[in-house]
Amino acid sequence: MVYRYPNGKPYRPSEGKQKRSPQYQRESFSNRGMTLEEDINETNKYYLENGIAVIHKKPTPIQIVDVHYPKRSAAVIKEAYFKQPSTTDFNGVYRGHYIDFEAKETKNKTSFPLKNIHPHQIQHLQRVKAQDGISFILIRFSLTEQIFLMNTDDLLVFWERMESGGRKSITRNEIEDCCHSISLGYHPRIDYLAVIDKIYFETRAER
Amino acid sequence: MVYRYPNGKPYRPSEGKQKRSPQYQRESFSNRGMTLEEDINETNKYYLENGIAVIHKKPTPIQIVDVHYPKRSAAVIKEAYFKQPSTTDFNGVYRGHYIDFEAKETKNKTSFPLKNIHPHQIQHLQRVKAQDGISFILIRFSLTEQIFLMNTDDLLVFWERMESGGRKSITRNEIEDCCHSISLGYHPRIDYLAVIDKIYFETRAER
Repeated sequence: MVYRYPNGKPYRPSEGKQKRSPQYQRESFSNRGMTLEEDINETNKYYLENGIAVIHKKPTPIQIVDVHYPKRSAAVIKEAYFKQPSTTDFNGVYRGHYIDFEAKETKNKTSFPLKNIHPHQIQHLQRVKAQDGISFILIRFSLTEQIFLMNTDDLLVFWERMESGGRKSITRNEIEDCCHSISLGYHPRIDYLAVIDKIYFETRAER
Repeated sequence: MVYRYPNGKPYRPSEGKQKRSPQYQRESFSNRGMTLEEDINETNKYYLENGIAVIHKKPTPIQIVDVHYPKRSAAVIKEAYFKQPSTTDFNGVYRGHYIDFEAKETKNKTSFPLKNIHPHQIQHLQRVKAQDGISFILIRFSLTEQIFLMNTDDLLVFWERMESGGRKSITRNEIEDCCHSISLGYHPRIDYLAVIDKIYFETRAER
């Protein structure tokens, strides 16, 4: 099933909905068929419940066209469309700092295609950076389940390379060179704030 | 008790609570029928376009039940319901700080009923406070078009009074005593960051 935006482009909540091969499913800490988004939601829930951070996924923006108001029951939306999000998926607060990020999965093995990121999301990340927010993207290579955190600064280098006629993707090697790898854990599943501690606070927060 | 920010600076409630004279209210910046949300969206747009802050309204959360996928056109949501938001309406980043607030209008003249705020929103504001985020509510008395910014700390005092059996609203006088009044302007319409500057940064940011 493909959701489509009004411009006809398919909406992909994440590419990871597809079933994974049995080998990966059998591994320890394996993804158990969870999408990157689901893993991050679980991670954020863990952060929230343990007082570590307050980070939520933003609801998907919907253009509502028609709503019915039946007597004695909840309003029913009868016609609505998916809108292209104008910002990133996740934001919140951690140790007084604003956190903002987008999460993307790819089934590619050797590179991350930049078409996964929309220009307005790049603009949003730039604006957040200008306000001294902490922003980044999380990239998962779904076939190997490897997860990387890439700073907005690094992302912008590759984005500008593409804009000036260069390659339209970031190679796996480049990602391994500039990004921070995040091991898949149990609780939390994807401890991206441990990387943020390392990059921004130098010391690990008491957990 | 002195509340301190991560940089060690003490929190000082601003003394400037410019009460607006009735004459001023009659002046030209009248609301022209715009809702509080629309005014805040315009204000946030102004902040965004002028590089002052990156603050957005979160999309309304929707529970999607049925989607149709017509060939060669956008997916149509045929049945969906409004979900109760679990957080506040607006968040973003300003001068490196996380900003989070809820905006509420009342047609009451003499008090603000606390039933306008949901318990989960109170919990969210408390969590944001625990992470040293800047959080507050904006209250508009729609009949007089007066707008007030109330800190989460103050809101919690009135909320706890209600929880312990006290009155279920905040009187207009209490609001005038503890809140910061915001004059309705033209660009931006509701310059709540000017109040945040006063409370948290002591100096007004260059605009």
